[in-house]
Amino acid sequence: MVAPLLTEGIGYIAACLTTFAFLPQVLKVWRTKSVRDISLVTYISLTLGVLLWFLYGLGIGSLPVILANGITLVLAASILIMKIRYSRRRPSRR
Amino acid sequence: MVAPLLTEGIGYIAACLTTFAFLPQVLKVWRTKSVRDISLVTYISLTLGVLLWFLYGLGIGSLPVILANGITLVLAASILIMKIRYSRRRPSRR
Repeated sequence: MVAPLLTEGIGYIAACLTTFAFLPQVLKVWRTKSVRDISLVTYISLTLGVLLWFLYGLGIGSLPVILANGITLVLAASILIMKIRYSRRRPSRR
Repeated sequence: MVAPLLTEGIGYIAACLTTFAFLPQVLKVWRTKSVRDISLVTYISLTLGVLLWFLYGLGIGSLPVILANGITLVLAASILIMKIRYSRRRPSRR
């Protein structure tokens, strides 16, 4: 087994990276209003999956799981909503 | 606390959804070769984060964490590689 402290540190960095990973995608879609290359099915299953992880965190009473998945849920759901909204109209010139 | 069995069930479904969520995005990019709307920074941090979760799983000796993040790592890294490759050339007509 690897040193527990090192493993824990890796876990925290991993949690930060995967929690905030979708922020640049939210900002890009918000700026360009262009969503053609983004997969609707990916963001439906991602939003649903993260929602279930959030409920799982509530079920086991784990604040890190609740917090990390709560933030990712907001970001993934924003992309999903914008994907649905902007799919109906032409993207703005860039 | 919620019934443990229900919570565990939610966890397994959440794991499946978030593990395979990126498969439709991989297939869409592979088919269209069009990556303009996809955020490079999102997939760099996602791939790095999932790689660290994979190492974290090895560190704590947890097969579910290793398996789930191993699959997501392959999918996220594929999207990242295609984003870099296809960013340089015009997307095919669809």
